[in-house]
Amino acid sequence: MVGSLMRISDLGRKSGVPIATIKFYLRERLLPQGKPTGRNQAEYDEGHLRRLRLIRTFTNIGQLDLSTVRDVLAAIDNDRMSLQDLYEIVDRSLFPADPVLSATDGVEAARAEVDGFVGKLGWQVTDDARGRLTLAHVLAALQRLGCDCGVDFFVPYAKAAERLAVQELDLLPDELLDTDRAAAAVRSVLLEVALSALRRMAQEHYLAQRLSGPASRKSN
Amino acid sequence: MVGSLMRISDLGRKSGVPIATIKFYLRERLLPQGKPTGRNQAEYDEGHLRRLRLIRTFTNIGQLDLSTVRDVLAAIDNDRMSLQDLYEIVDRSLFPADPVLSATDGVEAARAEVDGFVGKLGWQVTDDARGRLTLAHVLAALQRLGCDCGVDFFVPYAKAAERLAVQELDLLPDELLDTDRAAAAVRSVLLEVALSALRRMAQEHYLAQRLSGPASRKSN
Repeated sequence: MVGSLMRISDLGRKSGVPIATIKFYLRERLLPQGKPTGRNQAEYDEGHLRRLRLIRTFTNIGQLDLSTVRDVLAAIDNDRMSLQDLYEIVDRSLFPADPVLSATDGVEAARAEVDGFVGKLGWQVTDDARGRLTLAHVLAALQRLGCDCGVDFFVPYAKAAERLAVQELDLLPDELLDTDRAAAAVRSVLLEVALSALRRMAQEHYLAQRLSGPASRKSN
Repeated sequence: MVGSLMRISDLGRKSGVPIATIKFYLRERLLPQGKPTGRNQAEYDEGHLRRLRLIRTFTNIGQLDLSTVRDVLAAIDNDRMSLQDLYEIVDRSLFPADPVLSATDGVEAARAEVDGFVGKLGWQVTDDARGRLTLAHVLAALQRLGCDCGVDFFVPYAKAAERLAVQELDLLPDELLDTDRAAAAVRSVLLEVALSALRRMAQEHYLAQRLSGPASRKSN
């Protein structure tokens, strides 16, 4: 037995999660049952506390809904699932649905552009990677909006994505343990949030700079 | 009168949106009413078509829910709202809720680190910018997960965010027209999606490379 055993009240105190919420997670089986110690009492261990923190990180910071959290936790728990498949499930949690494909102008041409672009980058991604289609939809939508941009507009985005992916994967240890799978999944969600937060702040900064410039004083 | 007038069926055909959905948007006042031409008939113009495409881009590609779309459209339509405030509403649509602040370990220290980091970058962002708190939560969560990383881990993320914000803002014309406000809002949503799609593909590529390396053959 590793670590000290806790009551549900200790679990609540240590995690900052209300008891009612912990009971809800137990009922929903997101959190495994504790070891029964009497009628209506059970003991919990460090594994419960870790799992509870994981759930809260996914829901509070990652903004995932509970059914998505359930899928990601099941993937983490499934040792036979490859890390690639685990990442794919995490990715799906960030973009839950495929864009609805309607007969929208320009998507087929944009898809061909995207495929050429991915090829030029030298990225080995499967033909049915959701990212290809998503990017094609974005490109077609930008063009419909009057943006005079081809797929090369995304070069700096792709270069940034490369650097960040390498940096993130460097955090993986050589030999993956079960706890590393959970950490990899949650990191991927967290770093998406971090990037988005930084992008927003950079936008705020540069937009303010631009609007305070002499050329566009009147636009405020 | 600009452009040709259309019936609802033309609107459906040109946009690829089902008539029932268009009627729903009309009832929900996301789309303004057409000009009545008889009992139960109305005519629509290019403005309706543009608005319809905007709604679909937000919902299908941006994955925004309808109540968020409503807020963003109202912000676009409100000429007296500054571009900064418009961007802030778009940003809020990407991260609908603030992280729930509980007495989580390390967030205060992380917040101080983040503030120092933003200062060093020279970014002028308000003290209560949501990005600061979000980033502090991400950092604290990474550290709780055992990541041996300080805020400097985010340097490449911040540099990428800077480049992308500048590139995005360069698309704004010097004098903003109403249609530019809509374009700016939708571009911000679209480019968030593009970055995320590219990040996922880069991850797939580098993860495959890494797992096929000799050191970790057994981990599959």
